[in-house]
Amino acid sequence: MKIGFIGLGNMGAPMAHNLLKAGHTLNVFDLNPHAVQSLTAAGATAKETPKAASTDVEYVITMLPAAAHVRAVLAGADGILAGIAKNVTIIDSSTIDPASVTTFAELANLNGNTFVDAPVSGGTGGATAGTLTFMVGGSPTAYEHVKPVLQAMGKNIVHCGETSTGQVAKICNNLVLGITMAGVSEAMALGEALGIDPKVLGGIINTSTGRCWSSDTYNPFPGVIETAPSTRGYTGGFGTDLMLKDLGLATDAARLARQPIYLGALAAQLYQTMSSKGAGKLDFSAVIKLYRNEGDA
Amino acid sequence: MKIGFIGLGNMGAPMAHNLLKAGHTLNVFDLNPHAVQSLTAAGATAKETPKAASTDVEYVITMLPAAAHVRAVLAGADGILAGIAKNVTIIDSSTIDPASVTTFAELANLNGNTFVDAPVSGGTGGATAGTLTFMVGGSPTAYEHVKPVLQAMGKNIVHCGETSTGQVAKICNNLVLGITMAGVSEAMALGEALGIDPKVLGGIINTSTGRCWSSDTYNPFPGVIETAPSTRGYTGGFGTDLMLKDLGLATDAARLARQPIYLGALAAQLYQTMSSKGAGKLDFSAVIKLYRNEGDA
Amino acid sequence: MKIGFIGLGNMGAPMAHNLLKAGHTLNVFDLNPHAVQSLTAAGATAKETPKAASTDVEYVITMLPAAAHVRAVLAGADGILAGIAKNVTIIDSSTIDPASVTTFAELANLNGNTFVDAPVSGGTGGATAGTLTFMVGGSPTAYEHVKPVLQAMGKNIVHCGETSTGQVAKICNNLVLGITMAGVSEAMALGEALGIDPKVLGGIINTSTGRCWSSDTYNPFPGVIETAPSTRGYTGGFGTDLMLKDLGLATDAARLARQPIYLGALAAQLYQTMSSKGAGKLDFSAVIKLYRNEGDA
Amino acid sequence: MKIGFIGLGNMGAPMAHNLLKAGHTLNVFDLNPHAVQSLTAAGATAKETPKAASTDVEYVITMLPAAAHVRAVLAGADGILAGIAKNVTIIDSSTIDPASVTTFAELANLNGNTFVDAPVSGGTGGATAGTLTFMVGGSPTAYEHVKPVLQAMGKNIVHCGETSTGQVAKICNNLVLGITMAGVSEAMALGEALGIDPKVLGGIINTSTGRCWSSDTYNPFPGVIETAPSTRGYTGGFGTDLMLKDLGLATDAARLARQPIYLGALAAQLYQTMSSKGAGKLDFSAVIKLYRNEGDA
Repeated sequence: MKIGFIGLGNMGAPMAHNLLKAGHTLNVFDLNPHAVQSLTAAGATAKETPKAASTDVEYVITMLPAAAHVRAVLAGADGILAGIAKNVTIIDSSTIDPASVTTFAELANLNGNTFVDAPVSGGTGGATAGTLTFMVGGSPTAYEHVKPVLQAMGKNIVHCGETSTGQVAKICNNLVLGITMAGVSEAMALGEALGIDPKVLGGIINTSTGRCWSSDTYNPFPGVIETAPSTRGYTGGFGTDLMLKDLGLATDAARLARQPIYLGALAAQLYQTMSSKGAGKLDFSAVIKLYRNEGDA
Repeated sequence: MKIGFIGLGNMGAPMAHNLLKAGHTLNVFDLNPHAVQSLTAAGATAKETPKAASTDVEYVITMLPAAAHVRAVLAGADGILAGIAKNVTIIDSSTIDPASVTTFAELANLNGNTFVDAPVSGGTGGATAGTLTFMVGGSPTAYEHVKPVLQAMGKNIVHCGETSTGQVAKICNNLVLGITMAGVSEAMALGEALGIDPKVLGGIINTSTGRCWSSDTYNPFPGVIETAPSTRGYTGGFGTDLMLKDLGLATDAARLARQPIYLGALAAQLYQTMSSKGAGKLDFSAVIKLYRNEGDA
Repeated sequence: MKIGFIGLGNMGAPMAHNLLKAGHTLNVFDLNPHAVQSLTAAGATAKETPKAASTDVEYVITMLPAAAHVRAVLAGADGILAGIAKNVTIIDSSTIDPASVTTFAELANLNGNTFVDAPVSGGTGGATAGTLTFMVGGSPTAYEHVKPVLQAMGKNIVHCGETSTGQVAKICNNLVLGITMAGVSEAMALGEALGIDPKVLGGIINTSTGRCWSSDTYNPFPGVIETAPSTRGYTGGFGTDLMLKDLGLATDAARLARQPIYLGALAAQLYQTMSSKGAGKLDFSAVIKLYRNEGDA
Repeated sequence: MKIGFIGLGNMGAPMAHNLLKAGHTLNVFDLNPHAVQSLTAAGATAKETPKAASTDVEYVITMLPAAAHVRAVLAGADGILAGIAKNVTIIDSSTIDPASVTTFAELANLNGNTFVDAPVSGGTGGATAGTLTFMVGGSPTAYEHVKPVLQAMGKNIVHCGETSTGQVAKICNNLVLGITMAGVSEAMALGEALGIDPKVLGGIINTSTGRCWSSDTYNPFPGVIETAPSTRGYTGGFGTDLMLKDLGLATDAARLARQPIYLGALAAQLYQTMSSKGAGKLDFSAVIKLYRNEGDA
């Protein structure tokens, strides 16, 4: 297939490489020339604008930091919609708010194009290995149409429902994740303070009703799970600032929907405290530091 | 073995039956004559006081609603410590606060007895089937000593550490449980409000980082997990008032230890709201009613 | 003075009337023709676009629902900045986020204009009576320059500091307000449940350390303060949805600044719950309904 | 009058001195001999037990740290109820939970005595100056009967209603206080982060709807109110651990009453965090340190 790829950051670059490996033809665009070079060396064609990158292609994929960037790339001067042919499908793999997705899909439809939201989970590791999970929002037809392209970059291509439900799925999952991690943190720290061995406590929780990914795979207490970021100084995982971004999307979506998210809003403040203390780049499980008595007031 | 069993309620009665089935000899005591009758019909000997029930036995097991009852049965007039021989081991399977356990263990030690905390998980189903998990706090010697007795009533007999760590383990696990259930509730309700099919959302969470027992086994959204209480009108599970009791123990233990439990304290208020609306007997997963816009809980 | 006035809603219309009464000459613009008619009947000149309304004036005042509207009126096609002369001062009395103010001020400066944020408190009553409080962000010179104009509409014209601090002041005050109202609500409802007469409790709090505007002037318990909205069915005050908007601004500003606002984020969820139950138009003190056991809000 | 006084701590000692100054005859009891000496030097008679101190008196006043102490002094061996004559009135000025008051009043009634709860506000300063506020729970007759005695120690003697409502009033007031102080802290810290001068922000809040004692009298930001503990390093005010005790009483009372106190429960965790960091003896307004970015994660 002929594909335009916009956004070659930590996630986008390895995803684009996997498309090339799978034999697709790629136009690429990014503001960062180093990122572009790595892809042209692998066979992609560099383009000067998003508009140029999306001319004469069958699919456009965007992988950008926030909704404002997607909007600019889509509808700004030299944006995609100014250059694209009818019937081209735009796949946005950025993590953004569902309301923006709806707006972008309407804009694309007016232009004769289909817009599919397809945010991912799996991190940079999954992007490189081509094992990402894609959560796809769009019609059944659109889902079938994008599936073969996404399969070059991921292992699980899940159809979540109509437009924007891919973002909804991602946001809701990460809402649970942000809450369970902070919850496990307070239980592990309480247990430590009350004199139980953290490994024993972790073992009990992981075989009981408190069992969760945040405890059995990513336990925030150092040493409980050998492969977790907590055991290597909270490095190399899912950063606190990224969790904060996703909880921000959840908070905003909930506000628009007039849905309360008591625990989610509170958990967001805990990660915000970590970020304000300079720990925004640490893995989000470092939130346990707020509970363990290691510092001064 | 010769065992005194005090407290024949919803949990205690089936536990005592299982001890009889395993061939142990039982003295039983309860204020409720019906509960006593069921046990004497099965071969137990009824006694008039806790003191009488704990005379000439090797073990005493208590299964009572709260620390105040354990205190009365232990140290009140006609209490256990007034009648018991030296070297008898007292196993308390009630769920109570760790600080009380420490006090009771000291009282027992002064009297020449060993006091072991061994709260359970598994509910009335596990009590009847003899598949409970026992979380045991006490010395390694005490653990080995009580293990064969507990095996007649449960499948997993876990040594959590020194005295009171059994309670710590149970409280910390249920703290995580109370938080994850409320967290999954707000995510499922948010997803519903944002237009994703709850079964699809549940499926995504259950195979992703939001995975937890509260979602994959006991999902609060009706119909997502066929065997969950949510699918049968929130009946027959772990009652809201019981969760409230356990979160109360966690809150109190945390206050004594000067440990913050932000999410736990907030989750407790959510279950308290449910209880104040008359839903205290519903399964605790009914907390999702606070998030779904159905009007009154 | 010659003034352009954009935005003739519940607040803007009476403010514009007060400017006319004070002898100023007014160009007005609003999408709603009825709102415009009321002002032209009083002597203002209707204009077809924001641009036209801001041509040949000394000041432009904007009073709009949200930052997106201010952005459109300022920088959109037919926007103010396209028609305005250099050295004209733009006064924005909308309540919006401080970050947008900074952006708008930069845009205005590039165009040779001064942008002053001047959000108000005092409600529609104060707007009509000309007794609003204006919280002004801008240089001392800009403050002195706008003061005489604002005095035609308000009683207190407070200089809060440089650009955007007017919004900061308003947001921070309303953050405290949203928290104290919910706090007083839970204390009053707890007191009621524990058997103290609410009027007696209100009297004690109001002469003690719990004293606050939310208790001594606007007490949420019906009958404690005769003039409060609670005593007239929670009508005619500061609507729940408006409080929700302001707490949303506080939450967003705090997120950008990486500042935790634990209680504020939680209070926002309480008002969100009220709004989701259809109570968004009731006075925000109706939040006490979440605490009093009356069933549905 | 002839009065027995039990509990000569930081509060009790100056209160007892004021009773002596007013011409009353005092029997005193305390476990601390130094505290007793200071009172006997001023004319009081030392007694060996609470029972002895309450023999041949018209009133007994207790001023103790917690409900467990009141219970011991009342109903323990050598307790008051063992020695007291019928018709003697017992005034408990300790701050304890309302449910315990009800139990103690029943015990006293069975013995032919009246039990009045009369917790105080005003701190050690008010105790020394004789300007305390007493919040009295009891029948109108009991209130009239204790009023002249309390007037020797306080300025405002407020009748709150029937037995236990004195404690309810104190708990509910301090619940509001704990919430408003944390709320003002987050608003002041947010304002600081967003660039407004804290004195200006304090001034605006104090003349607007955010006005409260925690802002206009005891503002947690150093320098805003010259006489507040924040301006002298958070020393010499109402200690964090005392606030924590009172919020604990509120939490427990709310749990018993099945009343949610969302913000109160969360505020308690904030003070608990302060206490866990070793700041339990600082004034409770030091909670603002959790919001100002002065420390590491």
